[in-house]
Amino acid sequence: MEIKQGDWVRVEKDGTVYEGKVMPSAEGYVTLKMNSGYNAGFLEAEVTITLLESKPEEPEVAEGAAEKRALKVSSELPAKRSEKLPKVAILSTGGTIASKIDYRTGAVSSQFTADDILSAIPELREIADFKGRVISSILSENMESSSWENLAKAVVEEIEAGADGIIITHGTDTMMYSAAALSFMIETPVPIVFVGSQRSADRPSSDNAMNAICAALVAISDIAEVSVVMHGTTSDDYCEVHRGTKVRKLHTSRRDAFKSVNSKPLAVVDYDSRKIETLIAHTRRGEVPLKFKPGMETKCALVKFTPGADPAILDYYLEAGYKGIVIEGTGLGHVSTKWIPSIEKATEAGIPVVITSQCLNGRVCDRVYDTGRDMLKAGALEGEDMLPETALVKMMWVLGQTGAFEEAVELLGADLSGEITGCTLQ
Amino acid sequence: MEIKQGDWVRVEKDGTVYEGKVMPSAEGYVTLKMNSGYNAGFLEAEVTITLLESKPEEPEVAEGAAEKRALKVSSELPAKRSEKLPKVAILSTGGTIASKIDYRTGAVSSQFTADDILSAIPELREIADFKGRVISSILSENMESSSWENLAKAVVEEIEAGADGIIITHGTDTMMYSAAALSFMIETPVPIVFVGSQRSADRPSSDNAMNAICAALVAISDIAEVSVVMHGTTSDDYCEVHRGTKVRKLHTSRRDAFKSVNSKPLAVVDYDSRKIETLIAHTRRGEVPLKFKPGMETKCALVKFTPGADPAILDYYLEAGYKGIVIEGTGLGHVSTKWIPSIEKATEAGIPVVITSQCLNGRVCDRVYDTGRDMLKAGALEGEDMLPETALVKMMWVLGQTGAFEEAVELLGADLSGEITGCTLQ
Repeated sequence: MEIKQGDWVRVEKDGTVYEGKVMPSAEGYVTLKMNSGYNAGFLEAEVTITLLESKPEEPEVAEGAAEKRALKVSSELPAKRSEKLPKVAILSTGGTIASKIDYRTGAVSSQFTADDILSAIPELREIADFKGRVISSILSENMESSSWENLAKAVVEEIEAGADGIIITHGTDTMMYSAAALSFMIETPVPIVFVGSQRSADRPSSDNAMNAICAALVAISDIAEVSVVMHGTTSDDYCEVHRGTKVRKLHTSRRDAFKSVNSKPLAVVDYDSRKIETLIAHTRRGEVPLKFKPGMETKCALVKFTPGADPAILDYYLEAGYKGIVIEGTGLGHVSTKWIPSIEKATEAGIPVVITSQCLNGRVCDRVYDTGRDMLKAGALEGEDMLPETALVKMMWVLGQTGAFEEAVELLGADLSGEITGCTLQ
Repeated sequence: MEIKQGDWVRVEKDGTVYEGKVMPSAEGYVTLKMNSGYNAGFLEAEVTITLLESKPEEPEVAEGAAEKRALKVSSELPAKRSEKLPKVAILSTGGTIASKIDYRTGAVSSQFTADDILSAIPELREIADFKGRVISSILSENMESSSWENLAKAVVEEIEAGADGIIITHGTDTMMYSAAALSFMIETPVPIVFVGSQRSADRPSSDNAMNAICAALVAISDIAEVSVVMHGTTSDDYCEVHRGTKVRKLHTSRRDAFKSVNSKPLAVVDYDSRKIETLIAHTRRGEVPLKFKPGMETKCALVKFTPGADPAILDYYLEAGYKGIVIEGTGLGHVSTKWIPSIEKATEAGIPVVITSQCLNGRVCDRVYDTGRDMLKAGALEGEDMLPETALVKMMWVLGQTGAFEEAVELLGADLSGEITGCTLQ
């Protein structure tokens, strides 16, 4: 029987019935969009397919029933692992790429696993031999530095166990923070690729398939860096590969929300040809041995300066025992003159203060205007062209490595993982 | 005698001698770049010009001497006011457009007045009949809400005195905050134009002349809004006119640092043809009567959420007597679940909490994910597509108008001055 995209079909597998609309499917596979709002993929050879005349009636959804059916399917999928393809571990943390509608609230929540992604996107199995591992199942706004450390530990274990590449599925909200954290914690001989989705799999405009496929291509590539792979444009034409320390989510909802800031992307992945074109120099596969450097100081704060803001906020963090402060200043990296005594108090107490800019683009330079010079005199450190978010994560990591002020200052000013790029004032 | 651009000349005027290099000058004027590092403009008819064979020796600069000379020139310039040209008031607050090297520190500081700008850019006198007024002379990172109120008061006075348009020269660091503040405080029948410069006048790449000329063209135009006029590209081709509530400085040093976010610019001004092309609907000259609504609550805070951040920061602001909080959340407008009880505590205490996104681009929507729904239940208000900085200024203004929680909530959710635009999720 010939079935084509858009047909309504019934699929029987091992006595379980699935009904839905046929989605674009890889050769030898059939992918269904089901009434329950998500996709499921099947090997054609393993199922019986019946053509339906019309859309099947939507059944009463018993809470959890749909999930159970899908999980049953997915749990069978990763059974066969080929010896010929590169080995890639998919670590799932939650987020939209692994999300579905919560029938309790109608909102989207994170419950799917790496195996579900393999089930929904069968083309992945042509690229690598995948192994799924669930690290967490949370929306990324609930990630903390302990989550980053757990994730990094799992990544290191998979690399030690022979993975040729790592994919981390992650909520997009805080993906840039996690990517920066792993950039500092792991020196890696293989690609470590963060991927997410701005639209959940139940939406026709979902970006999860293309993002996951491009991430898989990067995971088996020569780009042995921590990177973020997401849509490059609003079309399904190519993904960009961003360095983990230079990337930022710059739109609440667009599929091409992630952009490299103060750097070109590492590479682009063409979706049609599946070719990767590198754009800047990167660490190559096997170039450095695996090294795990955990340790994150949680008592670090990112403070955004606004006009007239009371410097007492800096004193608050000092009194609350914070160990490091990143300021998001204005323009070239400024705060009001009234803030300078509090900056001085912090640095005199051995609390490093790094200045970044809320402009995001461009480089901090506190040697042009009087205010900046006075800030430097007070001990503030220029964050160069670091993103404020990356500077915060770096501060947490640096202070997790050393309690010595001078050593911390030296590390904060050095380029440790591509977070500071060469000076070219435009 | 024929003098041309690039010549070194000596200019004598009323017994005072000026030496420098001839800059691009308007018909009938000569503009010099002087050794002291800034420009001065003269009416050719009023001076004697001698060609020099080479660059004059740099004299020992006695502190203040250069300024005094320049001020002497400039103080004579605004003497003749034409009756035919539109009347434009230039209010100067400081900043790079009015900056020069401080010979004490070698850094750039703000000391010039509107008259100095007219002196340096004589072409301005072809566009309007200008009146200069010094409001302050500070770097814009030192502006506070009281500065905004003083500035707004002066603007209103000038409009009442018959100004057909207002130009405000302002440091670029916090220009967006001041522009937003005036947008809320003044309903205006004439254009109120903020203009600044990313490169001081002593640098060959200075953008101050083109920005000032385009600002003057907007000040006499039909665009009766509070706007920011700055370079549209890195070339000297056109300026963009940004709505005061939708603009953000997005680069530390580039001349085209200012961009409209979540909106097109109001207009572009072509530098060669001096024509203005409007891009979106705007309030027209005379469409609304002048109305001054001062009042700013200073105890408002912009808090940027980062992964794992301690919600105690919200409690700190509550205990410190803050009246309103704007949160810069992640993605569609999220914070970690741990923050929700503190949000609830704030709103129950009658402190409005508005959620914006650190993505900057796009719209906040807290109805998609569980976290967002829980935040709304806790009383958080969606900041729609408002910039975090604009949302803070709006909060300060709204709470300066009313102490009634319900009324404040209603005003915060309404589009008062173009800060919230229609909903089109991309």
